[in-house]
Amino acid sequence: MDKITPRIMPGFMELLPPDQILFNKIYDTIRGVYESFGFLPLDTPVLELSEILLAKAGGETEKQIYRFNKGDNDISMRFDLTVPLARYVAQHSGELTFPFKRYQMSKVYRGERPQKGRYREFYQCDIDIIGNGELPLIHDAEIPAVIFNIFKKLELGKFTIRLNNRKILNGFFGSLGLSENVTDILRIIDKIDKAGVEKVMAELSELGIDSQKAEKIIGFITAEGDTDEKIEYLRSLGIENETFAAGVDELAKVVEFMRMFGIDDDCFTVDLTIARGLDYYTGTVYETVLDEHRSLGSVCSGGRYDDLTGYYTKQKMPGIGISIGLTRLFSQLRAAEIIKPASNSVVDVLIAPMGVGLEYPLSIASHLRENCGLNTEVYYPEKAFKHKMKYADKMGIPYVVIIGEDELKNNSVTVKNMKTGEQKTVAASELTATDKLFSD
Amino acid sequence: MDKITPRIMPGFMELLPPDQILFNKIYDTIRGVYESFGFLPLDTPVLELSEILLAKAGGETEKQIYRFNKGDNDISMRFDLTVPLARYVAQHSGELTFPFKRYQMSKVYRGERPQKGRYREFYQCDIDIIGNGELPLIHDAEIPAVIFNIFKKLELGKFTIRLNNRKILNGFFGSLGLSENVTDILRIIDKIDKAGVEKVMAELSELGIDSQKAEKIIGFITAEGDTDEKIEYLRSLGIENETFAAGVDELAKVVEFMRMFGIDDDCFTVDLTIARGLDYYTGTVYETVLDEHRSLGSVCSGGRYDDLTGYYTKQKMPGIGISIGLTRLFSQLRAAEIIKPASNSVVDVLIAPMGVGLEYPLSIASHLRENCGLNTEVYYPEKAFKHKMKYADKMGIPYVVIIGEDELKNNSVTVKNMKTGEQKTVAASELTATDKLFSD
Repeated sequence: MDKITPRIMPGFMELLPPDQILFNKIYDTIRGVYESFGFLPLDTPVLELSEILLAKAGGETEKQIYRFNKGDNDISMRFDLTVPLARYVAQHSGELTFPFKRYQMSKVYRGERPQKGRYREFYQCDIDIIGNGELPLIHDAEIPAVIFNIFKKLELGKFTIRLNNRKILNGFFGSLGLSENVTDILRIIDKIDKAGVEKVMAELSELGIDSQKAEKIIGFITAEGDTDEKIEYLRSLGIENETFAAGVDELAKVVEFMRMFGIDDDCFTVDLTIARGLDYYTGTVYETVLDEHRSLGSVCSGGRYDDLTGYYTKQKMPGIGISIGLTRLFSQLRAAEIIKPASNSVVDVLIAPMGVGLEYPLSIASHLRENCGLNTEVYYPEKAFKHKMKYADKMGIPYVVIIGEDELKNNSVTVKNMKTGEQKTVAASELTATDKLFSD
Repeated sequence: MDKITPRIMPGFMELLPPDQILFNKIYDTIRGVYESFGFLPLDTPVLELSEILLAKAGGETEKQIYRFNKGDNDISMRFDLTVPLARYVAQHSGELTFPFKRYQMSKVYRGERPQKGRYREFYQCDIDIIGNGELPLIHDAEIPAVIFNIFKKLELGKFTIRLNNRKILNGFFGSLGLSENVTDILRIIDKIDKAGVEKVMAELSELGIDSQKAEKIIGFITAEGDTDEKIEYLRSLGIENETFAAGVDELAKVVEFMRMFGIDDDCFTVDLTIARGLDYYTGTVYETVLDEHRSLGSVCSGGRYDDLTGYYTKQKMPGIGISIGLTRLFSQLRAAEIIKPASNSVVDVLIAPMGVGLEYPLSIASHLRENCGLNTEVYYPEKAFKHKMKYADKMGIPYVVIIGEDELKNNSVTVKNMKTGEQKTVAASELTATDKLFSD
């Protein structure tokens, strides 16, 4: 029989075990922080009716959707976790407690032309807090507190949460009489980091904005100073615009709350260039950059929106949320060698029986698994001692429990620390996970 | 604007938070046991080329596949985790260490006509151990040891792992000169539990099997006795058939190993009626039943196969594995009220500030999250004390930390155990997770 070449499609990330272990560790860290703030798990279907998923989509997004018919159904694969959340909240609003805080860390699908850094299947790790009718401003500070805790735990070096408020932008442009151009202006200034001041000036001019206003805009978005100085600067502009004033007040209050949440001042900054999408966000917006790896772009973004569920219900449901694109982040961090696998195995302890059969070694393995909480593997083949050590070394297993004739006779084991090389013989009854035997 | 009715398609399981928390707890328990035996995580794509996924499929399976074209690709959604494993192992055989032990706990897709207990999207929780060329028999006992540990931990009452060996069946029927009918006979006797002896006799007769042989078959598959008696019975039959003898020897050896793995004798039994599929398994086969809920059928099944990767490579890759259909199992357990949600929240501690602002309460929350490992939520709205208690009660949050004027002044907190009603005021510095304050 002809063999079929085993392969996967481009644009899909599939890992070998050492990388999968590393990926899961990051995934579990994010999940742990999400739960530590009381976010509840959600797991919506990958497949939904196209009518539901595409209620809002259009243009580029819609072209990327994996969409097909099966039976009588026009079906799409989810392309983000926000639309399913909106559908879920609208569908179950009577059964949920508000503010509803949920996390979902699942794969989403976009049939993009494959290119570097773009995936057709990728994990999004989302949290959102949804209010029923209203949502207090304290939650605008809770979200960056979650980001702060995650990136502290991930140990990817110094990071900065960049903070802005869409009302400040809308109000500022309104005060210049440019309300109708806000969408275009935001699109242009969103690029200032990459394109530079001159290019932005040129594009503003193309929009018909005179150089005086363009200079005001540039001055505004490039204002310098620390967090408090920037808030002071915004107030000093003397702009008489209600939206602007409300935005500045919100920003000042969110900063005050963020400090109460224990977010270090050198881990966040006010950045007036951040707009995040064009018509979705309505208040606080965030981006997060790794200071030593700015080229990765924002690794965690989001913000506040007024109306999550408008396509499905008349109830007003404002919310706030962020997303970490974990597949892309992981592949970038790996490619830049910022992270690397620590082990080829999930095993804590390898048991190496030396000519004593398997009965006693297997009983020790059961004890270590069930009573000590240690992931334990038994090396079954009857091979020389050095083979077993080599295997532990190759797999990155930190401890080996050696069981020979003496150990069998004395109901003991010899524990070898593979990092330090130290070994110690102890009674089997002394084996516990909290013992220093199994920690460096 | 007209609203779109928020809904999901039939055949998809989507849970409210209390059930999702319960589901995740079971998922995490299974994952924990898999890792405790050293199985490595794998996460293959949901979408693969149809050429790859359907190399083996045909008939009913192929009709159920979600399959579509996008760009130049003929794409299918995976319908199990075994075919992707075969492709993965064939693709990466040079990069893996054998025996390769992997777990994957992911959703698979079958576009079935929706009916009770059938899902179009469901979790399979699979482990497999793959050998390169050969795979020692000890692994046939390791698999039920994993099952034993999982169902002990899940606390679903008494369970029995039913054990058989396909070589015993093949050899037995060969000795009756019925080798060519084995597939049909296995299909018939597989039903004996549900259809009964008479129906099986009738169907065997329709196959052209005379009543003498049919009685031998019935006598064989309904043989009684404990594990050792059944093995003794098999040997006493005096069947001179190599396959049969090899099967009995394997079974006896696997039972011996299973006891070494610490599997209680009353948690497994030899059941000669188990065949598990018609052309895939070649040695040891398993089913698992919950003794108090036999109507659920087998909740964890699998076995040994000779050739995992035949469609993709010439290398011989035997393996052994099991699968838990978690979505179906969960929905059955819930419907039968064998399990029920323990809490509406993942939160361990609710902080209730009583007119003291948020600064001190938020700092306590950070401390509990970061230093004590406790999932902590702060009740922000300024409401009466009883509202806060009611919320904790409704959400099933086990502890409330009350912070009033006195606590603020003294740098202390009052911890209330919601189950016992006891409360105790302690210095903030005394708050640790291992403290008895946060355990019943």
